[in-house]
Amino acid sequence: MEYLTLDAAMLRALELAARGPAYGPNPQVGCVILAPATSPDPTAPRLILAQGWHRGAGTPHAEADALAYAATAGIDVTGATAVVTLEPCNHTGRTGPCARALADGGVTDVVVSVSDPTAIAGGGADYLRSRGVSVTSGLRQDRGEALLRVWLTAVRRGTPYVTLKTATTLDGYVAAVDGSSRWITGAPAREHAHTVRRRVDAIMVGTGTVLTDDPTLTARDASGEPHAHQPLRVVVGRRAVPPGAKVRSGAEYLHLRTHDVAEVLSELAARDIRHVLLEGGPGLATAFLAAHAVDEVHAYLAPMILGEGRRVVGSLGATTLSDAPRLDTVSVERLGDDMLLVARTRPVTAGTPDPSVLT
Amino acid sequence: MEYLTLDAAMLRALELAARGPAYGPNPQVGCVILAPATSPDPTAPRLILAQGWHRGAGTPHAEADALAYAATAGIDVTGATAVVTLEPCNHTGRTGPCARALADGGVTDVVVSVSDPTAIAGGGADYLRSRGVSVTSGLRQDRGEALLRVWLTAVRRGTPYVTLKTATTLDGYVAAVDGSSRWITGAPAREHAHTVRRRVDAIMVGTGTVLTDDPTLTARDASGEPHAHQPLRVVVGRRAVPPGAKVRSGAEYLHLRTHDVAEVLSELAARDIRHVLLEGGPGLATAFLAAHAVDEVHAYLAPMILGEGRRVVGSLGATTLSDAPRLDTVSVERLGDDMLLVARTRPVTAGTPDPSVLT
Repeated sequence: MEYLTLDAAMLRALELAARGPAYGPNPQVGCVILAPATSPDPTAPRLILAQGWHRGAGTPHAEADALAYAATAGIDVTGATAVVTLEPCNHTGRTGPCARALADGGVTDVVVSVSDPTAIAGGGADYLRSRGVSVTSGLRQDRGEALLRVWLTAVRRGTPYVTLKTATTLDGYVAAVDGSSRWITGAPAREHAHTVRRRVDAIMVGTGTVLTDDPTLTARDASGEPHAHQPLRVVVGRRAVPPGAKVRSGAEYLHLRTHDVAEVLSELAARDIRHVLLEGGPGLATAFLAAHAVDEVHAYLAPMILGEGRRVVGSLGATTLSDAPRLDTVSVERLGDDMLLVARTRPVTAGTPDPSVLT
Repeated sequence: MEYLTLDAAMLRALELAARGPAYGPNPQVGCVILAPATSPDPTAPRLILAQGWHRGAGTPHAEADALAYAATAGIDVTGATAVVTLEPCNHTGRTGPCARALADGGVTDVVVSVSDPTAIAGGGADYLRSRGVSVTSGLRQDRGEALLRVWLTAVRRGTPYVTLKTATTLDGYVAAVDGSSRWITGAPAREHAHTVRRRVDAIMVGTGTVLTDDPTLTARDASGEPHAHQPLRVVVGRRAVPPGAKVRSGAEYLHLRTHDVAEVLSELAARDIRHVLLEGGPGLATAFLAAHAVDEVHAYLAPMILGEGRRVVGSLGATTLSDAPRLDTVSVERLGDDMLLVARTRPVTAGTPDPSVLT
């Protein structure tokens, strides 16, 4: 028997949401169902009847997961309040619409953190209201937006969130004059990069990188074992990918024979890719930066000074300092002898909060 | 009345030493004088009779400072043990030799952390032994070496410790194509760089930097106020420094009309410079790196990607990755939106510990 206020229930729902996978077409969502209010004080703690979260595309949504728990345990949710991190969907996809399931189940109040910006799944709040369910949204919206930052950016914009990964010397080289580049960064930095691969939907490189480095582009752990989730491997460029290239074997592989950034992003969006990790090389990185198509930069820097070699990025047309945008630093971290700077190119595009904000 | 073991007294002496200035020709030294042993147990705590530290060239050495305190307070140090972070000097400079003062004062035991490697001041242990004083050295030698790392490197080698400071974009540029460079790093990074200036004996730039940026090269606090200690400003290169250059006014200024790294270092060593901060530009940085004359790198990196511009360092002759040495990372720190990596090019040259090591 556990009692939570609405606010605490939303924080719990956010924690539950984060248990779901960061990758995949669907957002991370959590749901806590609270017993009907027995006190006129809206901040009074209420009994938790059920909770659930979404475990990835093809599995039940968070609301359905919580309702299924209640049904299995014989718990009546009539008159209950569903606290959900994202507006319940109004869409029959691989699972039925959550808005209908909540109303059918007898839930009379729904409290939402973030409204669903997608045309296909949105409209759940309107549907619920049409069924007489009270819906408020905006509770802990900052946290909800932070949790879903990547997904929201991708679905609001209609193109994947792009993270550019670079691994350079202190003076900005990704390889020496003779092309040697293994390894600039040490094992801890490379392992960290693999943990990022596990969180994305796709990894992208140019054909030049395939021809030079012949990378596998799989997500592996420190012992080299492949991770259960393998992102789509995407090779961009007009040159042919050799039949024996490692990127062709193992996980899924896609070759986009274009240099057009918008075309690449639209091809990936059509495949429900929400987050693509751009791992190189300099040509592709330069094209994406020049097109202002990078959302986040993961810059791994090794304590080496090469003096000359292959530069991480080519000309972006900046001739004076103020031409170059200053990124927003998120974190600076030491990884072995290397360091990692995570920075974003622009703030999250905020959604429009519902006027009936709770907090 | 405070009692300390020999080991704790050495730790105290190291703390006292660190109160002295990091700059200047003399090392930071601390001294604790313990009462004669009353127990046969060498690890028994003993009463502190006096303590002292060196406050910089021209002021009493740590041992003299402690002895002066004892004399003023009427404390008899006959039979006492002096715990000193560095071997007492045997040299009459601006102050008299400490070894003689300790023996004259009746001290019968001297415990030292680090032996003095200098020809001019060393020999104190031999002198003390010739006066019948027992001398042991090597207690907490690691900490003693760490405290005096810069000074020991400089005096053992006979040339100043060189710290290279760089302030670059993530892709290794110190200025844009048009030469604009103010500011790549933000205020917290620039303030940090000023705290480093306060700890060095000299700041060095090339004539190119003087002609381009006209820097003052003074050590200032956040409000722009100059610090009490101003390092010598050194300009290196054959071009003339304009009469109105800011570097000519204010603190001391030196123009070395040479491009020869060894000549520069020997000129600075002749002026008792132990620590020189190399602040640019790329030509001078490249010359010092190519000559393997850099001991430490302070790399400030801003979250910007320029794509092209003025590179921080030119060719060092490295054509393959293994040609470039990997620096030893000391620390990684976030400073506002920027980051600072401190790394060393080589381990400290260890002195030869005295065979009579205590620990």
